[in-house]
Amino acid sequence: MTDRPRVYLAGPEVFLPDAAEVGRHKKVLCEAYGLVGLFPLDNDLAAAGAEVPVDRAIFRLNVAMMRRADAGIFNLSPFRGPGADAGTVFELGLMHGLGKPIFAYTNAADTLLARTPDATRDPNGVWRDRDGLMVEDFGNADNLMLDACLADAGAPLVRAAATCPLHDLEGFEICLRLLAARLGGVA
Amino acid sequence: MTDRPRVYLAGPEVFLPDAAEVGRHKKVLCEAYGLVGLFPLDNDLAAAGAEVPVDRAIFRLNVAMMRRADAGIFNLSPFRGPGADAGTVFELGLMHGLGKPIFAYTNAADTLLARTPDATRDPNGVWRDRDGLMVEDFGNADNLMLDACLADAGAPLVRAAATCPLHDLEGFEICLRLLAARLGGVA
Repeated sequence: MTDRPRVYLAGPEVFLPDAAEVGRHKKVLCEAYGLVGLFPLDNDLAAAGAEVPVDRAIFRLNVAMMRRADAGIFNLSPFRGPGADAGTVFELGLMHGLGKPIFAYTNAADTLLARTPDATRDPNGVWRDRDGLMVEDFGNADNLMLDACLADAGAPLVRAAATCPLHDLEGFEICLRLLAARLGGVA
Repeated sequence: MTDRPRVYLAGPEVFLPDAAEVGRHKKVLCEAYGLVGLFPLDNDLAAAGAEVPVDRAIFRLNVAMMRRADAGIFNLSPFRGPGADAGTVFELGLMHGLGKPIFAYTNAADTLLARTPDATRDPNGVWRDRDGLMVEDFGNADNLMLDACLADAGAPLVRAAATCPLHDLEGFEICLRLLAARLGGVA
């Protein structure tokens, strides 16, 4: 069974109190689509060696897991602010740089502009936040580098309005279907 | 002069009202260190072709600029929240994935934990925000994937307390010195 495609499961759910349970649920869904889910918290920290600081050990193991993966699915739901979790965004860029297929979802249906507090148009029609910083107005869910990368790579960001934004897996399952079809898994 | 090393200048300053001026200032500093600065706003959108949506044109031109660059310097200063700008974080991951040398600074001296509102310890000693989400406690300036990546790549994130967080270039210049020394430029 080791030849089933492996998919890296990136997202801020690693910070949830029930992170392991969410990871388990995601991996069960992967199985249903003929895929093997790789969840960052499953890494064995001891494998990095005791002489490495814990944060760097986690980093190295996550990167090794991404290199091992055939593709990635990224949870870009808003996290502590209007945009996605930084760790997940970093990993999206990394896996794109490595040339791996990427798929992503967000459990928020609206745009980054709609989620930016107190955004108003300046005299030139440009949207700016309360500090005068420009806010992109492309209808994207997040910074254009994220949305446009996904669209350019063939699978636009999936937006799924969710009742429980950091737990609902409808958007995740849509990504699984897209990925399974792309990789030739069981869809 | 085309053989001078090229450095991609990533950061949320592209959203400032005086973005072009900040970019010009960064490029002048690059020159002083024997480097050529590549600033995203210098891209000619027309080069992407009229049939491509503007956001995807910007994405493609930025990625082409990063591929052309010999290295990158990233401004990871907090942006609209406790952490760095998503576009810059994506680009950090991408350039690391492409195997390019990366350097970064933040114009905030404190930690992500210190900047997270209402963080408290749970009964197990784990820091959690007001939504119960874990906050990393590694003394890092941002998500561990960012800080640990930079440390692992040989140039830990430069923290420079600044009076004008999105304009001050002291941290940027420290990165320039590190980069010039690494690439063998004029330091």
